[in-house]
Amino acid sequence: MTPSGIVTLTSDFGTADGYAGALKGAVLERLPGARLVDLSHELAPGDVTAASHLLACAAPLFPPGTVHVAVVDPGVGTARRGLALRAGPQLFVGPDNGIFGGALEALAETPVIHVLENRSLWRASVSPVFHGRDVFGPVAGFLASGGELASVGPAIPAAELVRLSAPVPSPVAGGLRGQVVHVDRFGNLVTNLRAPDAAPASLEVAGHTLPLSRTYGDVAPGRLVAVVGSSGRVEIALRDGSAAAHLGTGAGLVIILRAPREST
Amino acid sequence: MTPSGIVTLTSDFGTADGYAGALKGAVLERLPGARLVDLSHELAPGDVTAASHLLACAAPLFPPGTVHVAVVDPGVGTARRGLALRAGPQLFVGPDNGIFGGALEALAETPVIHVLENRSLWRASVSPVFHGRDVFGPVAGFLASGGELASVGPAIPAAELVRLSAPVPSPVAGGLRGQVVHVDRFGNLVTNLRAPDAAPASLEVAGHTLPLSRTYGDVAPGRLVAVVGSSGRVEIALRDGSAAAHLGTGAGLVIILRAPREST
Amino acid sequence: MTPSGIVTLTSDFGTADGYAGALKGAVLERLPGARLVDLSHELAPGDVTAASHLLACAAPLFPPGTVHVAVVDPGVGTARRGLALRAGPQLFVGPDNGIFGGALEALAETPVIHVLENRSLWRASVSPVFHGRDVFGPVAGFLASGGELASVGPAIPAAELVRLSAPVPSPVAGGLRGQVVHVDRFGNLVTNLRAPDAAPASLEVAGHTLPLSRTYGDVAPGRLVAVVGSSGRVEIALRDGSAAAHLGTGAGLVIILRAPREST
Repeated sequence: MTPSGIVTLTSDFGTADGYAGALKGAVLERLPGARLVDLSHELAPGDVTAASHLLACAAPLFPPGTVHVAVVDPGVGTARRGLALRAGPQLFVGPDNGIFGGALEALAETPVIHVLENRSLWRASVSPVFHGRDVFGPVAGFLASGGELASVGPAIPAAELVRLSAPVPSPVAGGLRGQVVHVDRFGNLVTNLRAPDAAPASLEVAGHTLPLSRTYGDVAPGRLVAVVGSSGRVEIALRDGSAAAHLGTGAGLVIILRAPREST
Repeated sequence: MTPSGIVTLTSDFGTADGYAGALKGAVLERLPGARLVDLSHELAPGDVTAASHLLACAAPLFPPGTVHVAVVDPGVGTARRGLALRAGPQLFVGPDNGIFGGALEALAETPVIHVLENRSLWRASVSPVFHGRDVFGPVAGFLASGGELASVGPAIPAAELVRLSAPVPSPVAGGLRGQVVHVDRFGNLVTNLRAPDAAPASLEVAGHTLPLSRTYGDVAPGRLVAVVGSSGRVEIALRDGSAAAHLGTGAGLVIILRAPREST
Repeated sequence: MTPSGIVTLTSDFGTADGYAGALKGAVLERLPGARLVDLSHELAPGDVTAASHLLACAAPLFPPGTVHVAVVDPGVGTARRGLALRAGPQLFVGPDNGIFGGALEALAETPVIHVLENRSLWRASVSPVFHGRDVFGPVAGFLASGGELASVGPAIPAAELVRLSAPVPSPVAGGLRGQVVHVDRFGNLVTNLRAPDAAPASLEVAGHTLPLSRTYGDVAPGRLVAVVGSSGRVEIALRDGSAAAHLGTGAGLVIILRAPREST
């Protein structure tokens, strides 16, 4: 695949320490013409689930041949594997800890997966605590320069990928029982329930029953509202405020979706 | 106008959720060669005034033909309009909620304004809760590729723009009465008072009388100092500290400016 | 030296105020084709030491001919000098306050240093409170366009550079006594002790004795671990947590390193 020359960056490094800057330098050291695009360096330390969610939202929109390097890597330096993989037109580089699960689900393409073993593509000296700089960044630069995926190391089947466990909705009398799986910056409660196929639908959450609305502005300021969020999942918001703060709760909160015909 | 190929991004998305990354992907999906420049994704949720202030500070410096996409958009999905506009050499895309007021004032050029109605320029499926990704990002990519402003939809007169109300200084005996309109990251209190035309000038604030100084270092560490800030407005700072924390106050605080000849 | 066209940006501006955006605009105003790379805008206000540490970590990896503009500048507008300098293949622009000390040490090359005096390279109007926008940004653009370092102003010897004082390890019975000089986002305590030349080594910190391990995963979750960090300094971490929070301490904490042969 022709590379786009774009390398996106996702990490829990913050930016105040120089780790994100070093990761960027490592990509450019290998490919000075790479076009870097920050997705985030502000993920909570070690929050692989949030990284997976972020990549699911963002990665599918990028031009074909984009390389997404993602480093939320609490197991750095242990026996956990490093990976490079392709799913449809997108390439990914990072640790084998489930971080690419969301993107793979969103892209819905059979991935081609290789384990990073070709040390000639890495920096000459590899710190056991910073594979972002010494392994993943250089490999991302290599792939963005048009390097062959197969050059990074041997292929493995998709069944061998480490996967995050995720709560699955379950049927209940007259509906589906799901839960909040992500709280966003606005305090919106994102659930694991996909948009129902048929209207009218309603949500039961924390003693409230909410009709499924179209957008936040469909209710008065300060009121709870249920909408289909931008990733196609049902979410609970508070107009001009934070539903998480209003309800005093977050991930794990149970939601019941009632609709004429249920979807999963 | 020849596009610079640069697209700046301003939002209240934070980066931990994937919304900012999706916005970037949406621009690049339309124009893979676009050169993205983050202005901010860290505006307070829904703070259109702060977004307007930021764009006033930053947008005028960019090369001619730069597209500034700004998405602080609490009214997303409602009847509020989406806009693309040109003021002097700069282009803007975002909601019609006053977000471009500061930049238009700073650029001091008659804007050409079009309402976003040409859906063929949008993503095929438009979420009612994420016009950044599905409308504004793609239109920004279109304009940055050299697309005609008039192609996005019909023109409207500047008088139809939604405008933010802003406090205006008023004359008082021997001076001008203004107020703090913005507190920056350093705790500097930025006022709505423009630099006086003549010296010596002094400020009265919270029981203090401060001469108008040249820079922070003109006073001892820990002392309040009044200077003309980088946007030409009078501001109150604390050398090597936060004036906002020191005074225990912020936006809305009244300031009296006394000068030989008053300016507005 | 052939410029890479890359300009990195480091500041304590945050992004919510427009100062970082204005700095970017100022570079692009001078060199519309510059490729901007954010290192950080999230340094603590006025924290020159942290900026120096960040640049030491990140700058050496960038392609030859990269310009690093760094603006943590509490002395802006005073008699402190502005500098442009070259160390090996890297160029730097910013205030003469010690901000480049870490990078100069990391690059270990004799720097060529010039004072910014050629006002024709600056913006026409210079705010005494924003040299990032009006002086450093434009000079960075000039250098990234291939401008001669000597054009910015007269050369000065390296001995004239302002330097930050840094605590130096001292020998104690059977070891070296150092201290924590930086706490990173993960709560890791970075010391001023370089990796010992010989094993086995151990650390004494806050009543704990820790063997020097290879990586975080060498201990159980929730346990303290000492490793050689990615910059070659000894650091104390807590697996899957924050050592700083666990120990209730940070910069200044005393560490004793014991090793068969001591290094400094």
